[in-house]
Amino acid sequence: MSFSFNIDSNCEKARAGTLLVDGNEISTPVFMPVATKSAVRTLSSADLIELNFDIILSNTYHLYLTPGTNVLSQFNGLHNFMKWPKSILTDSGGYQVFSLNHNTKISEEGVVFKSHIDGSSHFFSPESVMAIQQIIGSNIVMPLDHCIYSADDEIDVRNSMQRTHDWLIRSVNSHNSSNSALFGIVQGGVYSNLRKESCLFESELDLPGYSIGGLAVGEDKSTMYRIVEECNEYLPSDKPRYLMGVGSPEDLVTCVSLGVDMFDCVLPTRLARNGAIFTKAGRKNIKKSTNKLLDTPLEDDCLCECCQNYSAGYIHQLFKVSEILGYRLATIHNLFFLKQLMVNIRNSILNNTFNSFKNEFLSNYQPTNEIARMEQKKQWLKGRNII
Amino acid sequence: MSFSFNIDSNCEKARAGTLLVDGNEISTPVFMPVATKSAVRTLSSADLIELNFDIILSNTYHLYLTPGTNVLSQFNGLHNFMKWPKSILTDSGGYQVFSLNHNTKISEEGVVFKSHIDGSSHFFSPESVMAIQQIIGSNIVMPLDHCIYSADDEIDVRNSMQRTHDWLIRSVNSHNSSNSALFGIVQGGVYSNLRKESCLFESELDLPGYSIGGLAVGEDKSTMYRIVEECNEYLPSDKPRYLMGVGSPEDLVTCVSLGVDMFDCVLPTRLARNGAIFTKAGRKNIKKSTNKLLDTPLEDDCLCECCQNYSAGYIHQLFKVSEILGYRLATIHNLFFLKQLMVNIRNSILNNTFNSFKNEFLSNYQPTNEIARMEQKKQWLKGRNII
Repeated sequence: MSFSFNIDSNCEKARAGTLLVDGNEISTPVFMPVATKSAVRTLSSADLIELNFDIILSNTYHLYLTPGTNVLSQFNGLHNFMKWPKSILTDSGGYQVFSLNHNTKISEEGVVFKSHIDGSSHFFSPESVMAIQQIIGSNIVMPLDHCIYSADDEIDVRNSMQRTHDWLIRSVNSHNSSNSALFGIVQGGVYSNLRKESCLFESELDLPGYSIGGLAVGEDKSTMYRIVEECNEYLPSDKPRYLMGVGSPEDLVTCVSLGVDMFDCVLPTRLARNGAIFTKAGRKNIKKSTNKLLDTPLEDDCLCECCQNYSAGYIHQLFKVSEILGYRLATIHNLFFLKQLMVNIRNSILNNTFNSFKNEFLSNYQPTNEIARMEQKKQWLKGRNII
Repeated sequence: MSFSFNIDSNCEKARAGTLLVDGNEISTPVFMPVATKSAVRTLSSADLIELNFDIILSNTYHLYLTPGTNVLSQFNGLHNFMKWPKSILTDSGGYQVFSLNHNTKISEEGVVFKSHIDGSSHFFSPESVMAIQQIIGSNIVMPLDHCIYSADDEIDVRNSMQRTHDWLIRSVNSHNSSNSALFGIVQGGVYSNLRKESCLFESELDLPGYSIGGLAVGEDKSTMYRIVEECNEYLPSDKPRYLMGVGSPEDLVTCVSLGVDMFDCVLPTRLARNGAIFTKAGRKNIKKSTNKLLDTPLEDDCLCECCQNYSAGYIHQLFKVSEILGYRLATIHNLFFLKQLMVNIRNSILNNTFNSFKNEFLSNYQPTNEIARMEQKKQWLKGRNII
């Protein structure tokens, strides 16, 4: 396993870099599509190559439950199982244990949780999560972390942060560094002092990269941006910084300006299946009847397979009859949009025009209503008994 | 509109031919995938081109209900709506009115039926069905026919046949022949005398092609084969013969040997979404746990996109987690299988080796159990209050 990160150019805090992972070159800033259950929903690995993605994220929690480590072991890992020749980053399951289960019991040793599929009981420790990711064959692995609702009481957040640190030490000790790069995950909720402490503690370990965890879990956007900025002040500037679970176009642009290099999120693919289409002006709901008679693409100058071949009216009809092809074409469009956005961001950093690119993008892009978004997220968290 | 049919070679009753439809060359025997609601389910028009299909079938009934004639008219027809550059055949809705609705009222004038979507009331006449297909822009159109359960009483079947003939005359009179080729549909259930009468009556009209309707609707296979053989004796030998709604591999091979040139069926795509995979040995259920650890393709020597890239174990996992990609890859495999089968059938006719090809194929291919198949079909018909 070889891993390196080089910063090719800066534009104030924004960075354009190159990750070299086992010979695979990944330009940053990078957005990683999420292959939760060994596929980016609706797409094949060949489709992802076609879309020019160099790295995807998959989930240790989901892969552990299905297909399970026996299948992945038999197939010599996820790369061969899904026939994906490029890089894979896996999260640790810390977030899924936090968000999908109602019967989680956390102790110093690890986490006992019930499967969201069949209710069966399982145990994750920092060590077992390293072992599972080794079977998965991930190129970049995450340590088990204790992720809690970011607005929780400071004492609770401090405790979860300290547990995350303890678990990180155990992860480092059990990690077989010859096979993958282990990143740290900083926690500390919305508390600046805790985030600083977490960043400084983990920086000391001189890991190949650092993830910012515990954000995009219910706090408002300005708080998220503040915390990201503060973390990046204390994280080593020569290591890649990965903001976990963030993927709306406005967040990608803004967080690159705050010094983030890597992102992942199910948002573009989940939105696509719900008919929400990314455009430079903001999200467009393809299900609206105003699209019915449109013989023009979802976005006029878009070069994706969907926009190059099919009309908004046709995609509207596919959604109206719940045709799977519609979900696929919308997914291709949204991922192409984000890939193109990252390419444009990177080029503008290399050309030292990132600030004007950012200002222009954000002035054109109408984000979803923040109050509505917060309310949706609150309902989602409530539905999972998290708040 | 130009339409011609040339028989390139015979092998006893089997024929290899060429349809020339508006400049598009279609080799026969041909299987037409079904794009019920303006898409072959899970696939785009680009995918169908990739699979080398030259003609697809779509449904007048479904297209009339959604997206509707106003949308299709605005888009100048289905070719442009779904961006399909090759040929389209549309059925007349006769079969759907028969199979999907419980409140059909048939008179000499036409059919009053309720939409299976919202229960709204509609009227189809031979003339309106011609007009709808003109808006769709089909290259080959079907007349409204009266399709009844094939085991019905002979008097009822005779009446429906005579109505079909009356309606065919009206269809011919209202058909704008400059835009499309109108086929006849012969009826007559399982009664040899009625089938003969229907074939002779319709042959007199010297139409560009003939469809055999009212089969594969509950009768056993040997009865279906007998009726197909009898129809082909009385249909003109220089016109294409289209057996409607038939598409299992064993039926395609057998019915080509009886002189059929064209087929359509939702079976390969519907089976695919249920995990039933065509192989030379018969159908294989990919959901079975025996596939779980297989790092080999669905079929070893298959050249389809699915088999060339992914393992049976991976497809099994996609079905296990209900991942849309699995439905798509299985659909690609089944349609590739049928396309390849038709190519092999045609080549063997051209090489005068069709009989040995047929015998070898049928000796290797294990069809589904006939009793189980009949029982399933009976339940399906009962579910629609047809029997």
